Amino acid sequence: MKLKVIAYARNGHTDKFGIPRQSREESPILTRIVFEPEYNVREALRGIEGFSHLWLLWGFHKDRFADRVQTANADRIQTDNAGELSWSPTVRPPRLGGNKRMGVFATRSPFRPNPIGLSSVKLLKVQSDKAQGGKDSRLELIVSGADMLDGTPIYDIKPYLSFSDSHPEAVCGFAEQSANYELRIANDGLGMTNDGFADVPEDVWRDIQYILRQDPRPAYQDDPEREYKMDYAGFRVTFVVENGTIFVKKIEKM
Amino acid sequence: MKLKVIAYARNGHTDKFGIPRQSREESPILTRIVFEPEYNVREALRGIEGFSHLWLLWGFHKDRFADRVQTANADRIQTDNAGELSWSPTVRPPRLGGNKRMGVFATRSPFRPNPIGLSSVKLLKVQSDKAQGGKDSRLELIVSGADMLDGTPIYDIKPYLSFSDSHPEAVCGFAEQSANYELRIANDGLGMTNDGFADVPEDVWRDIQYILRQDPRPAYQDDPEREYKMDYAGFRVTFVVENGTIFVKKIEKM
Repeated sequence: MKLKVIAYARNGHTDKFGIPRQSREESPILTRIVFEPEYNVREALRGIEGFSHLWLLWGFHKDRFADRVQTANADRIQTDNAGELSWSPTVRPPRLGGNKRMGVFATRSPFRPNPIGLSSVKLLKVQSDKAQGGKDSRLELIVSGADMLDGTPIYDIKPYLSFSDSHPEAVCGFAEQSANYELRIANDGLGMTNDGFADVPEDVWRDIQYILRQDPRPAYQDDPEREYKMDYAGFRVTFVVENGTIFVKKIEKM
Repeated sequence: MKLKVIAYARNGHTDKFGIPRQSREESPILTRIVFEPEYNVREALRGIEGFSHLWLLWGFHKDRFADRVQTANADRIQTDNAGELSWSPTVRPPRLGGNKRMGVFATRSPFRPNPIGLSSVKLLKVQSDKAQGGKDSRLELIVSGADMLDGTPIYDIKPYLSFSDSHPEAVCGFAEQSANYELRIANDGLGMTNDGFADVPEDVWRDIQYILRQDPRPAYQDDPEREYKMDYAGFRVTFVVENGTIFVKKIEKM
């Protein structure tokens, strides 16, 4: 089967570094799902407003994880004849510290035979640019919780059916222990007016805090000396991490 | 992206007629996930035993819904140049009686741009034929709840993460009203020794009852005169439906 891209995700995640993985905390990050011309059909969304949650099936962006190959999987990742990343039977989940191997089908790692991601998102709004009128008016779904790179291709959108999709009692193996993992932010709310901090809009600062709490470092590197940089929504954040606490050093407008 | 088949589903659903759609009731039907040689690698499953539930991404079988085209979608379904079924912006969900149109992205219909199905299943057992030894021993996952045709191609297996995948509070639009829909079986447990009833093993009879309760008729046809036939696990079941009650007329060994 050959997949067709039906839409693209547009959000502030212009940097592959920092995109949260499956997190327990509800993501505040807004994403616009922008349909490709062939699928920009209002009636294909009829009834979707009645659902609070949706599933997105999407493609792992090669760029997104290219740099992680170096740290987490260098010894195992192979490329096939076409030069694409191929699958690896085992991967090192970053939430296990990056030094334990698990079977790829026991993880949500991108290094799978078919690199399709699965995310449940909250549907906030169906937007259609009525000014343009007619079939060609621009359709968008506004969702939160789509923690994926800006420009990620979307292959399918499905309604979330709680009576068949929701299993709160499900046991989650080794993932259980890391479900509550979060970093603290030392200068939480310290804010945007201080020296070295650009004038960050409140919603962007809220998003940045969310991303930082999820620990954007590759595979739990734990060097308190090291300065990390992460770009989000036009801002570059510089931070260090010491004993589970994040210190934001700088926020610059890019 | 081109999808590779990593495994095939094997179960008693040899007949496309009767396969339950998303159901509230927990499915008892057992399915074996049999890996293709390239993916028959024990270490790719390392740690999977710790998860109670999995996601399967699978391909809608053309045969499965070919006959439904006639009833539910005949006026809209087109084939593309390659002769494959193409997508339809709206579909008539069988659970709405087959006479109301909904946007395809608001349904789990197979008539989607990328006909990929998504099912959460219960992982019962990881089976490996140790007798053969080594890398080539035959691996299988035994799951319940994979209500798909025997021979369905599987594209991905992911762990179910309750902390990010489970939303019991999710609102399910028009699907809500049909979540509790079920037929009653008049001769429930009446059983396998009666005249006209072949000697059906107990677990097969349990599966058949589950399938019947989900209403296997195409799009709520409601003609009490009509006899329906459904094949499952080597048995052919003949039944009629009157006022929400199923009367099993015959069970024959095929």
